[in-house]
Order: sequence, then structure tokens, then C-alpha cells
Amino acid sequence: MNETRSEVTKQRILDTALRVFRERGYTATSVEDLCRASGVTKGAFFHHFESKEALALSALEYWNQVTGRLFASAPYWQVVDPRERLLAYLNFRAELVKGELAEFTCLIGTLVQETFASHPNLQTACGAGIEAHVQSLLPTIQAAKDRYAPHAEWSAESLAFYTQAVLQGGFVLAKATRDSKVVLDAIRHLKRYVQQLLPQQGTE
Amino acid sequence: MNETRSEVTKQRILDTALRVFRERGYTATSVEDLCRASGVTKGAFFHHFESKEALALSALEYWNQVTGRLFASAPYWQVVDPRERLLAYLNFRAELVKGELAEFTCLIGTLVQETFASHPNLQTACGAGIEAHVQSLLPTIQAAKDRYAPHAEWSAESLAFYTQAVLQGGFVLAKATRDSKVVLDAIRHLKRYVQQLLPQQGTE
Repeated sequence: MNETRSEVTKQRILDTALRVFRERGYTATSVEDLCRASGVTKGAFFHHFESKEALALSALEYWNQVTGRLFASAPYWQVVDPRERLLAYLNFRAELVKGELAEFTCLIGTLVQETFASHPNLQTACGAGIEAHVQSLLPTIQAAKDRYAPHAEWSAESLAFYTQAVLQGGFVLAKATRDSKVVLDAIRHLKRYVQQLLPQQGTE
Repeated sequence: MNETRSEVTKQRILDTALRVFRERGYTATSVEDLCRASGVTKGAFFHHFESKEALALSALEYWNQVTGRLFASAPYWQVVDPRERLLAYLNFRAELVKGELAEFTCLIGTLVQETFASHPNLQTACGAGIEAHVQSLLPTIQAAKDRYAPHAEWSAESLAFYTQAVLQGGFVLAKATRDSKVVLDAIRHLKRYVQQLLPQQGTE
């Protein structure tokens, strides 16, 4: 019973962390803020996490699990053709752009922007999170390249990273312009690029 | 004499701010840090800036001046053809990617990522900085579109924002991967996209 309650508390802190870190960044979020926002005592907080950095590392792991499940169960995996699957992935990313800025932007991009030089453990975890998502896209992009542009000079990996650069940059510009439209426009340009890179007439 | 010294002090604080904010972000940088790093007293700091936020607003203005001058005097303006000028601009952006992460990444992207929800004045200033740079690119992109893709459905403005999304996102990924290569790869993809969007055979 107590163990269950303890798990619920830990989960609540993690859920709060995803929201508050994305809203205010890493440094501006204090342990006190996190306790207040999740309705737990400092004692409970430090029972689960030995420091704010330890919590942020757990929050990044949790973020990777949550988004990993979201992407793994997304409809684009039903699309057989790898070129169409990649485009369906980008459509799915566009569908996720709704609600408040802090709701659709990325925990990793937000945290690494301010911590890369000062918190190497967070930087490493952010890098691993990006890498894991890139790896989840790579077989699709490689298969699409093999089929539609086998002799092209770009690598599937560089295109996978490029898709993430466009999304992360779109989030930065959305925050600066207070408008999610810039992300949707960026995804539209990216889709057009993918369509051009993988010409359908290239099929044998 | 005193006025000159005072200006030198103010300038030193601003130069320090560009460096330290890009290294550690907004919240993690205290007025004390800024005083220590620029070798000025707190009294001198508050003589010039009434708060850290006021300094950050001045630093953003200074950043726009410095980068504005850098871009205004860059060699790509010598390129007559607007398509080639846009590609030369992207080459110039690639040339700027060198040294430490904090040296080539963007003050605006770094500040807005963590302050968009908590500091509306900083957000507005960041948005204005992005907008100003986009406006500086717009005549080139519009002329290139008019000449090479007059009937294309994308707008010159959306492509201008897209170039900035790619760069900002490249910076985020460089911070996460500890490697500037991802920015250079992203610029390469972006150049390929621009070349495809503006087909040379389209000239009459």
C-alpha cells in the first residue's frame, strides 16, 4: 500500500517535471517549485530523487519512454511504403503541434539549450534521447533511400538528424514568435524536401 | 573622461553577457556572475542596467547590432543572382560554425527557449530579433522565387523562417550531440532543398 502510494508520488513528481521544465527551463525550476506544483513535501521529493539534476535525468528517461510509446504506437507504422511512412511520420509530428507552447515543444531541446556547458550529465542524456529517436527513424529512411534514391550522396542518418533539427528549430521559433504556425510551415517545407529527395519516378 | 570609462564598462558588461548567457542560459547567470566575469562592481552594473532583465534586453539589442553588421558586410551581398546569393548566405552561415558551442550558437535561441513563458519582454525582444533577420533575407528570397519559381505555392517569407528554423534546430542538436557537424549537415540539406526549390532551368 505504502509502496503504491510512494510510486504514485514519484510518478506525480515526474509528470510535473515534464510540464514545469518545459514551461520554465531547468535552472528557473527549483525543487520547491516542483514540490509545490506536484503537491508533495520536500521529504517525499528527496526520498525519490537525490537532487534536482537526478530528477531531471529521471524526467528525461521518462520523457523518452512516454514519447517512445507515443511514436511506437503511432499510425505511420501501418504505412508499408517507407517513403510514405516517413511522410506520415511528419504528418504525425504536425498533428502533435497543438495547445500551449510548453505542451507541444520538446523537453530535450529545452533542457539542453541552457545546460549543455554546465551539466554534462544532462547533456549526455539529452544527446542519448535525440539519438534514440533518430535510430527509430533510421530504418524507414534507409529503406526509402534504398528504394527511391539509392545513389544519392546524402546519408539516411544525416536526413534523420535533419528532420529533428527542423522540428527543434521550429519549436525555438514558435517560442520566439508566440505562434505554432512556424512549426507547421517548417514541417511543410521538410515534407516537400523529402518528396523531392525521394522522387517517386525513381521506382523501378 | 569619466563618461568614456563608463561607456567602456557598459560595453564590457554587454560583451560578457553575450558570452555568458550563451554558455549558461539566462536564469543560471546571476548579476554577480556577470560582474565577476566582466570585472565590474555591482554598483557599476546597476548604474548601467536596472536589473538582469534590463541587461538581457540591452544584450539582445547589442546582439542584433553586432550580428546585423556582420551579415550586412558579409560577402554574399556581392552575389548578383538572388538564388546564388541565398546559397552564399547559407555558405556564410556554415563558415560561422566554428570554435566552442557557445561561440557559434545563437543568443536569441538560447534565451527564448527558457524564458518564453516567464519573461514576456525577453520573448518579444527575441521574436523581434528573429523577425529582423528574416526581413533582411526576404528581398533576396522573394527575388529568387520571382525569378526561378514564380508559380510555386510556398511563400518567400515561410522559406526565410524555415532557414532560421534549420539553423536554430542545428544549434540545439549540436549542443545535445557535442558536435557541430550536425549543423553543417543541416545546412547542406537546406542548400540542397533551396537548389531544388529554385530550379535553374526555370530561368527564361
